[in-house]
Amino acid sequence: MEKEQLFDVFAQRRVYDLEQPRYAGAPIFPSHAPGFVYTLHRRHEPDQGEARTGASGMIYAAEHSGTHIDALSHQAENLSLYGGRKVTPQIQTSTGFTELGVETIEPIFSRGVLLDVARYRGVDCIEADQPVTREDLEATSQQQEVTIGQGDVVLIHTGNATRWKEPAVYLAGVGVSAGASQWLADRQVQAVGADNVAWDIVGVIDPDLNVTLPGHVILLVRHGIYIIENLFLEDLARDRAYEFLFVCLPLKIQGGTGSPVRPIAVVRT
Amino acid sequence: MEKEQLFDVFAQRRVYDLEQPRYAGAPIFPSHAPGFVYTLHRRHEPDQGEARTGASGMIYAAEHSGTHIDALSHQAENLSLYGGRKVTPQIQTSTGFTELGVETIEPIFSRGVLLDVARYRGVDCIEADQPVTREDLEATSQQQEVTIGQGDVVLIHTGNATRWKEPAVYLAGVGVSAGASQWLADRQVQAVGADNVAWDIVGVIDPDLNVTLPGHVILLVRHGIYIIENLFLEDLARDRAYEFLFVCLPLKIQGGTGSPVRPIAVVRT
Amino acid sequence: MEKEQLFDVFAQRRVYDLEQPRYAGAPIFPSHAPGFVYTLHRRHEPDQGEARTGASGMIYAAEHSGTHIDALSHQAENLSLYGGRKVTPQIQTSTGFTELGVETIEPIFSRGVLLDVARYRGVDCIEADQPVTREDLEATSQQQEVTIGQGDVVLIHTGNATRWKEPAVYLAGVGVSAGASQWLADRQVQAVGADNVAWDIVGVIDPDLNVTLPGHVILLVRHGIYIIENLFLEDLARDRAYEFLFVCLPLKIQGGTGSPVRPIAVVRT
Amino acid sequence: MEKEQLFDVFAQRRVYDLEQPRYAGAPIFPSHAPGFVYTLHRRHEPDQGEARTGASGMIYAAEHSGTHIDALSHQAENLSLYGGRKVTPQIQTSTGFTELGVETIEPIFSRGVLLDVARYRGVDCIEADQPVTREDLEATSQQQEVTIGQGDVVLIHTGNATRWKEPAVYLAGVGVSAGASQWLADRQVQAVGADNVAWDIVGVIDPDLNVTLPGHVILLVRHGIYIIENLFLEDLARDRAYEFLFVCLPLKIQGGTGSPVRPIAVVRT
Repeated sequence: MEKEQLFDVFAQRRVYDLEQPRYAGAPIFPSHAPGFVYTLHRRHEPDQGEARTGASGMIYAAEHSGTHIDALSHQAENLSLYGGRKVTPQIQTSTGFTELGVETIEPIFSRGVLLDVARYRGVDCIEADQPVTREDLEATSQQQEVTIGQGDVVLIHTGNATRWKEPAVYLAGVGVSAGASQWLADRQVQAVGADNVAWDIVGVIDPDLNVTLPGHVILLVRHGIYIIENLFLEDLARDRAYEFLFVCLPLKIQGGTGSPVRPIAVVRT
Repeated sequence: MEKEQLFDVFAQRRVYDLEQPRYAGAPIFPSHAPGFVYTLHRRHEPDQGEARTGASGMIYAAEHSGTHIDALSHQAENLSLYGGRKVTPQIQTSTGFTELGVETIEPIFSRGVLLDVARYRGVDCIEADQPVTREDLEATSQQQEVTIGQGDVVLIHTGNATRWKEPAVYLAGVGVSAGASQWLADRQVQAVGADNVAWDIVGVIDPDLNVTLPGHVILLVRHGIYIIENLFLEDLARDRAYEFLFVCLPLKIQGGTGSPVRPIAVVRT
Repeated sequence: MEKEQLFDVFAQRRVYDLEQPRYAGAPIFPSHAPGFVYTLHRRHEPDQGEARTGASGMIYAAEHSGTHIDALSHQAENLSLYGGRKVTPQIQTSTGFTELGVETIEPIFSRGVLLDVARYRGVDCIEADQPVTREDLEATSQQQEVTIGQGDVVLIHTGNATRWKEPAVYLAGVGVSAGASQWLADRQVQAVGADNVAWDIVGVIDPDLNVTLPGHVILLVRHGIYIIENLFLEDLARDRAYEFLFVCLPLKIQGGTGSPVRPIAVVRT
Repeated sequence: MEKEQLFDVFAQRRVYDLEQPRYAGAPIFPSHAPGFVYTLHRRHEPDQGEARTGASGMIYAAEHSGTHIDALSHQAENLSLYGGRKVTPQIQTSTGFTELGVETIEPIFSRGVLLDVARYRGVDCIEADQPVTREDLEATSQQQEVTIGQGDVVLIHTGNATRWKEPAVYLAGVGVSAGASQWLADRQVQAVGADNVAWDIVGVIDPDLNVTLPGHVILLVRHGIYIIENLFLEDLARDRAYEFLFVCLPLKIQGGTGSPVRPIAVVRT
């Protein structure tokens, strides 16, 4: 295939937007309150001295607000980060991390796979007390006839994204079990994501790891696998688009523990 | 080509990262001071009650800080936005725009073209008093044997990106003339970008349009063409990668006049 | 009285703290959401290279959050500020006002009077549907045997401050009628204040002035009288401390439309 | 003296404003960058539906920006705060301190003393390499014929406040030596203040305490004495107002390590 034909590959394509809208009052994990605020201070207004005017504003936001990716610096186990790096004041500073910050995440431009566990379960939205298990992932991938390969990005559809406009309901959405996280880690994926606020089941101590949010330890700390949260996966699920080109471009916030992102899934049509 | 071969297309690829690093003290247009600030408030620290700890911070930033895209709401001419929409309090509110906000920009996944005007001029970095003209664009595209098509994203390399670490020098970098902006608008491109702070020449009133930053009027207001600023184009220029898949995913900041972005250029190798 | 005796005057004194505590989640008028946020980024932590360590944080706040004073620039009537100044882009800028900003408020160090309307009404807390009227103020001042003089600061106790911990209840608290505001304006007071979020009755259009928050027009715009909101007046009311030295020191936020404050009332004992 | 005469005491008074103006770009200690930012988002503008309009903005600021007071939680020595409290995650949290936060500072309404060391030295502004020593304080108080008593607030005039508009020059201003801090601590003062950015000499390790900013350890950590920084003392010094009623009302920022303040000095005339 010649270089000049490069763009033809995607001439017939569909781009799925996987970001939830970003505004004040959107669902936010309590640790990251108030989430996201945007205020407009420069305005288009008369008598500015010329015909052209500019408007702009200021953002105040947690880097973990809305649809976002977790950097490896976000989590530690026994005060060690991924790769066994000890947390020290040299690494963890008042303005961010000098290692494993979100700016170290390369642009993600990879094979993506959607596992529609809600559909496998036969529901629109999985209830909160029915966590996504390793067995769900195995059965769903079999049902969908997809295999998970090294370097893939795996997204789990629970149906929770439809509740974005009801923050309390959304935040109480179902999570992914430690076993399911381990199953994905074993497959050496590059990143995982789901349509909930924290990937994991919230507020429960895992009996094996003896921590809350065990998937954060398994994926980020032990295996260096990124987690993407608050994804909008409804259109992908509706169209049964289970394999796609997944693109996610975290902002290079120097030392940040995450970044708001607008991931997309691209398929040819 | 079968669907399962989709990812093979880019199996041999190179991804160019076009975002400048994002940190406090980076070059910022005075209207958008202080630019970008990130502070870490949640820390990994001992005695948190479990082995797992989380760290995270807060961002305070102008949406026009660092590498960013301008939404159509960002600019007006005689108090009209793109498409002739009059600026009213219903459209322009204290928390952003109800029309033409940055959330209305679709994910950009398009043919991109780099015009290396610096190379055409035979310099590493074009001096500030030598603006990029229509003639530069015509001659450069001829020299590079590329054509600009409808819907393309056109990036202009001036060499200024290498000065990012010296804010005063960077901010004084060269701009693009009104004639060059018009030439691009005539070609019905989707978006333009450059490796400087404001696309246009800063601080000069255009004699024809009688405004400062005339390209902002021509492109955003009159033609609905997005502008991407503060791009890092050095690697693309070095590799003479003049045509590529260009991906830019603005955050859906509801009502925002722009968004920080991390654009990429992708070529097959 | 000799100068050296100056401090003896207040040697036997009681200082009443009239500020509500300031924290995220405190009651906030919707226009000023999210109100107040404080995050600690610099920490005391080991291995900082010396025995001394410093901790500090960042504030993100509306200037009208918590106990605060309204500057004259805060309100306009028919786009005129106090003194008939027209609102222009020269006066009203993206970073504040060039006239009548909060930095123009002199330190307030004046006679203060508490009108305990709740006590006059015989209730702990006045219900929301029973606004404070001109008659209330007249009768309360008679009952308390206090006169209101030019330059005084008049504080109105409704009992609402006790509901600070229940934001929804607090925000629905009772307001002061336009007639009562006019009565105070006629007495040429320097400032007024109350233990509610907006001085006025919220959400009602005044039939005479045909505006919401009519007291804001009468006091700030027409008479140049400052309004202090979200005061804590319970201790003053309990002790029937109806006359006092009132001290309020607004921060000189250049161009600001208000300032968080910690007013005090001082009486000799 | 009867209660009703209370306000007569200060009927003939002069109030000195000791706060520097507060705006973006004012001098700021590097740890607290960007200092202070205020942006106006709600505007007076036509067509708002009623004659009344409101304008307001958002503050983003370090609590140690501009004229401010340091709370006891601001400093630690060997990870102990004032009173020997160990720094633990229970006390030091991501949103501030649960003990010794700035909200625990009572309103300061006390005898104040100005020591005009610049005048004693015979200069308008003391040079940076001539720190204020214990001997300066002793000699100045003798020259001024004032004694420092327990509970006083002592302010030191160096003349540096006149350089506020030149941040780099201001920040390089002279500091107070460890010996002078100890002399004040020995007198059991309630608070100290000066017209410089950090009270102490900046950037030097004290040979005795082996720390930078030794006064911060001596005053805040060892003696529980508050420090007020960036005071404007020129008017007091010019009028030789060496004794006064000092009022400083820190905002009750729950858990904060300091607060912006507008202190005043009041004298009878």
